[in-house]
Amino acid sequence: MSGFVSFVGSGPGDPELLTLKAVDRLRRADAVLFDDLSSGPILTHVRPGADLIGVGKRAGRPSPKQNHVSQLLVEYAQEGGRIVRLKSGDSGLFGRLEEEQVALRAAGIDYEIIPGIPSAVAAAAACGIPLTRRLTARRVQFVTGHDASGALPPDLDLRALADPGAMTVVFMGKRTFPKLAEALISNGLPGTTPAILAEAVCTSEQSLHRDTVAGLSARLAGEIGTKPALILYGPMAELGVGFD
Amino acid sequence: MSGFVSFVGSGPGDPELLTLKAVDRLRRADAVLFDDLSSGPILTHVRPGADLIGVGKRAGRPSPKQNHVSQLLVEYAQEGGRIVRLKSGDSGLFGRLEEEQVALRAAGIDYEIIPGIPSAVAAAAACGIPLTRRLTARRVQFVTGHDASGALPPDLDLRALADPGAMTVVFMGKRTFPKLAEALISNGLPGTTPAILAEAVCTSEQSLHRDTVAGLSARLAGEIGTKPALILYGPMAELGVGFD
Repeated sequence: MSGFVSFVGSGPGDPELLTLKAVDRLRRADAVLFDDLSSGPILTHVRPGADLIGVGKRAGRPSPKQNHVSQLLVEYAQEGGRIVRLKSGDSGLFGRLEEEQVALRAAGIDYEIIPGIPSAVAAAAACGIPLTRRLTARRVQFVTGHDASGALPPDLDLRALADPGAMTVVFMGKRTFPKLAEALISNGLPGTTPAILAEAVCTSEQSLHRDTVAGLSARLAGEIGTKPALILYGPMAELGVGFD
Repeated sequence: MSGFVSFVGSGPGDPELLTLKAVDRLRRADAVLFDDLSSGPILTHVRPGADLIGVGKRAGRPSPKQNHVSQLLVEYAQEGGRIVRLKSGDSGLFGRLEEEQVALRAAGIDYEIIPGIPSAVAAAAACGIPLTRRLTARRVQFVTGHDASGALPPDLDLRALADPGAMTVVFMGKRTFPKLAEALISNGLPGTTPAILAEAVCTSEQSLHRDTVAGLSARLAGEIGTKPALILYGPMAELGVGFD
């Protein structure tokens, strides 16, 4: 008899930003498969004796292939018991959730999805900014800054991303931002648009830097470091507090 | 000596989707100012004796003006103690957070922002769908379906919203969806694009209905009821389970 899988969004990394439901599932888990960004203090909720399996694939480091992760998840679930698949932020946002759902369905294994605090939303809160403003900032968009090869995705809707009235959050886009910024500016986004680099949000390593789109592009053309990062740009990025 | 305000995102309505930090702030609050959609079982975390102040402004019903809400928040904070301003979903997404921040800053009152599970993310999880897909659905956008007068905002970026490769979530857009759908279709979105109407997500009243953009538009041109709703459309909306 197969086990049951809970896809659990761990939020951005602060264990206090786990939901009650996430904590419940972690406490009752027989095995937890976790990504790099959902490790650390979050895992203290797991009971002693449960299996803890790191399946991290952090940018810039060699990492397990996605189909290997899906296969591992199926294998653990086939042994029975309660399995938690812990993903940072919310599993449904750039978490490759669908690929693991497909593998479970093919193996006849039941699952549930428990939402988590998206890192984009946590980053905005950490900077003290809303992502929307009545009348003037009515659209928010989240986009990934790299494709499978680590390059800027070739088919981005640049006009949508260059809308100066929208608030945009770029996930995993530190390395490709100089290229993206160049494309945005040629599609009409002013280089002076306020931008924020939010690194390691809600962890002890958190760093928040405010700049403009053009300024951040120049900064990221140099040394970028290994901290996971989000880039926020648009009208709301001019507000906020607590920057370096 | 003024009090301290915690803006707390309550998530979509299921008390198990509160974060640990939200529960902590609710337990320690001397006063909680809450919206309609962040009431109910969520408030059981508040200690007996704390002030509970409903400042709801639900669509279609007469409601306090925003400046009245901000003023009330300032007045409670000026009496001292720990104040929680509870907003449904995440405060920074269509929550008019900035207007209340401005009022607190003008009055010299300190505050913090605690993110919550956005209703859009909870709706996707409830339907069993991710909001992104590697290689083919790399952009997610959230937009509000009405302006101050309740009509479709006149300045929406329709081309961005009509991108068939993006996943879009419309907040508070049930009433205006027929108009929006018409505009989207004239901007190139196929009427056959999969769409989901997610009402009262994560509450006992939850209802999930799957259709197409054109079909949902026809449905919402009729009786729409009073349940709060999100509309999700785009490539990921063809997946999922648990629909009516």
